[in-house]
Amino acid sequence: MPRYALRIEYDGAPFAGYQRQRDLPTVQGALEAALARLEPDLPSTAAAGRTDSGVHASGQVAQADMARDWDPFRLSEALNYHLKPAPVAITACARAPEGWHARFSATSRRYLYRIVSRRAPLVHERGRAWHVKHALDAEAMRQAAGRLVGHHDFTTFRSTMCQAASPVKTLDRLSVEAFALPGGMELRIEAFARSFLHNQVRSFVGTLERVGAGAWTPEQVADALAARDRAACGPVAPPDGLFLVEVGYDPDPFSTA
Amino acid sequence: MPRYALRIEYDGAPFAGYQRQRDLPTVQGALEAALARLEPDLPSTAAAGRTDSGVHASGQVAQADMARDWDPFRLSEALNYHLKPAPVAITACARAPEGWHARFSATSRRYLYRIVSRRAPLVHERGRAWHVKHALDAEAMRQAAGRLVGHHDFTTFRSTMCQAASPVKTLDRLSVEAFALPGGMELRIEAFARSFLHNQVRSFVGTLERVGAGAWTPEQVADALAARDRAACGPVAPPDGLFLVEVGYDPDPFSTA
Repeated sequence: MPRYALRIEYDGAPFAGYQRQRDLPTVQGALEAALARLEPDLPSTAAAGRTDSGVHASGQVAQADMARDWDPFRLSEALNYHLKPAPVAITACARAPEGWHARFSATSRRYLYRIVSRRAPLVHERGRAWHVKHALDAEAMRQAAGRLVGHHDFTTFRSTMCQAASPVKTLDRLSVEAFALPGGMELRIEAFARSFLHNQVRSFVGTLERVGAGAWTPEQVADALAARDRAACGPVAPPDGLFLVEVGYDPDPFSTA
Repeated sequence: MPRYALRIEYDGAPFAGYQRQRDLPTVQGALEAALARLEPDLPSTAAAGRTDSGVHASGQVAQADMARDWDPFRLSEALNYHLKPAPVAITACARAPEGWHARFSATSRRYLYRIVSRRAPLVHERGRAWHVKHALDAEAMRQAAGRLVGHHDFTTFRSTMCQAASPVKTLDRLSVEAFALPGGMELRIEAFARSFLHNQVRSFVGTLERVGAGAWTPEQVADALAARDRAACGPVAPPDGLFLVEVGYDPDPFSTA
């Protein structure tokens, strides 16, 4: 059975998350419904990141084991045709190398979280950023983010529902960039690691927002990390600012696509 | 009657253009309905650019003559409250200087046009960019854009409905920038001038797209300009890629806001 790697972009708003659920619209459900139009036996799929309800992606990666040999370009065109009108698109498709797995072969994940800080309601960014009405101190947030980078026990920043075997992870990068926007500013927070715990990025962002607002100091973030206690975390940021941007593989299955 | 300068952001999709029309939803109609909630006599308004149906703005500027003295911050908050849930937001508000007029005092307009060139359907950019499924040669488009900059008779690039007294205008800048995007690229075309003719930017972009696709040469664009004939223009690009980004004034009424 030939395995295909699919890079997927989606708007998380209409979905109850990535993972298939009975009676709820999900991204995996939409993808598998499109695949079912192509082959009579439902091809099995798996994805690199099971994003939560409302979370977006521009670079999710999934695998599909097909019964037939497909030209990758034709497969992506057929899937995009059958995915309409759902806000889901296949932006790359490749025959996967021997032994490759969308989830277990991934060597990194990169997430982007967008905050718009301004008084006026969001227009163009509505549903694609967290709207915060007060000013944020990007430099203080950057300092606090620096306290989280590295190899740590991230129990504080992990959902109590998290099923990962260990809360110890290495966070390679957590950057905070500020851009001017009419009436305020946009903050782009990027997180990069081999893998993440459940709700980890949104727990980071909710805590960093408290620092930006002046309610917490960067030192308090370091203390919260050291506490290894979920109760020490700031509020969890809403899902609609979060994007799964990129999943890394070595070698990259799309490099020749 | 104190005059206020308002900077306005809107999603053009649900509106039949900026300018008020009987029985059709317009941005001016939404703004004036919100103003009518604040003062019994409908304040009169005027705007710098009367954008077409479906065209967006992040920096439209309008004026409103109010009967009462309003604190500018309170006025913008009250308008944003009454504008909900329309995708229109006041992102800056200031008391206008003596003699200032939103349209006649404007010294420049800046427009952005976004094209996404890729096979896959648009997801995050849907409704906010022109989706072109073939590849585009950004360098050829840049060369063609260079032929349009300067003081010219722009009859070729002007709607036959245009009411401007003269087709002669000075185009100060027409830049083409390319950015990578999953599965393709985004082109950002920026146009800057004191003022524009009706449909001028969309006529430029539709013609430049033909150059990017290889159907026209940059020389043919220069010939089309020299023809001073509407029939020599390429197709007019769709409205949903176009944004009125900035209106310039000297002095800037918002500089102290």
